[in-house]
Amino acid sequence: MFALPPSLVELSAALSRLPGIGPRSAERLALHLAQAPKESAALLAEVLLRARDRVDSCRECGALTESQPCALCASAERDVSQMCLVEQPVDIIRFEKAGVYRGRYHVLGGKISPLDGVEPEDLRIAELEERLKGGVIREVIIALSSDVEGDATSHYLARRLSESGVAVSRLAHGLPAGSGLEFADEVTLGKALQGRRGVD
Amino acid sequence: MFALPPSLVELSAALSRLPGIGPRSAERLALHLAQAPKESAALLAEVLLRARDRVDSCRECGALTESQPCALCASAERDVSQMCLVEQPVDIIRFEKAGVYRGRYHVLGGKISPLDGVEPEDLRIAELEERLKGGVIREVIIALSSDVEGDATSHYLARRLSESGVAVSRLAHGLPAGSGLEFADEVTLGKALQGRRGVD
Repeated sequence: MFALPPSLVELSAALSRLPGIGPRSAERLALHLAQAPKESAALLAEVLLRARDRVDSCRECGALTESQPCALCASAERDVSQMCLVEQPVDIIRFEKAGVYRGRYHVLGGKISPLDGVEPEDLRIAELEERLKGGVIREVIIALSSDVEGDATSHYLARRLSESGVAVSRLAHGLPAGSGLEFADEVTLGKALQGRRGVD
Repeated sequence: MFALPPSLVELSAALSRLPGIGPRSAERLALHLAQAPKESAALLAEVLLRARDRVDSCRECGALTESQPCALCASAERDVSQMCLVEQPVDIIRFEKAGVYRGRYHVLGGKISPLDGVEPEDLRIAELEERLKGGVIREVIIALSSDVEGDATSHYLARRLSESGVAVSRLAHGLPAGSGLEFADEVTLGKALQGRRGVD
């Protein structure tokens, strides 16, 4: 029986644990890397270790950063009265690429999900409350995904933050831009109808 | 303006040079790796370096291997009278996974392509002739791709090897298994017609 060299099997297995990389592409990548010049494999390993070593979570907001606090928290040009609450650091990058928001961020680190053992105290809610104490933030915009856990976490947060006196809002849910009714599933259509607004 | 941490930009760039990984997936992978536990990033770097370090080309046939000669060349169970000529080490893996061939292999390392500066002396043809001198090999099966360079290289090799007294054959070209006429392009259809065989 034919078998790949053991170190290639190992590399393939490690690569296939990455998101979006199936067993076939992992094997293809492993073979490519094993045939590539030694320097390019060494370079990839080096930048990987450097990134993992230098990048950390911002102590303030939780974004991925190489400096403390991160550029977004340190910037004097951001609106300090708004705080956008996201699940993961990646979500901040999505907002910033879209260029649609100018306030601060706070990474929650997940959603409440008792079935997966994620309780409110596992999330960065205490840190959020600490930041709200300054009294500068007037609105918290919840930008969690629109699934069951996202909904439950949003309601929990709205209730818990109600005492702090800040306004709590949530991203609108409805039809995505450029898409018609024929592509909308029932839940999306229901939410779009529920959230309908007057036409000026 | 928002910018990703520099080490993440660097990691993204290195990942996007891998085959089949576009800029968007490279960024997604970089973000995933930067957020993953330090150990898993370190493990990936380690297996990558180990694979690149241990895997080498077989001195005999050119396959990727950790031992010299490779398991395929060392095996006493392979048919030593047949030699399959492939372009890249990966091609050997394709044959072995299909389990359709029991002879030896020889990696050519490319195809003749004057436009890309690949001349016959850049390929492992001298090594092939050296192996043929033993007189054990009776058939060389050319398994190069069916494009212009593959065709030209096959003809060149057939001519050059004609003096050595071995039979030279080439893989059949025609309709792929399980596919009908409606999916065949003109060249495939032409080759399928040209290569038609009597029905027993």
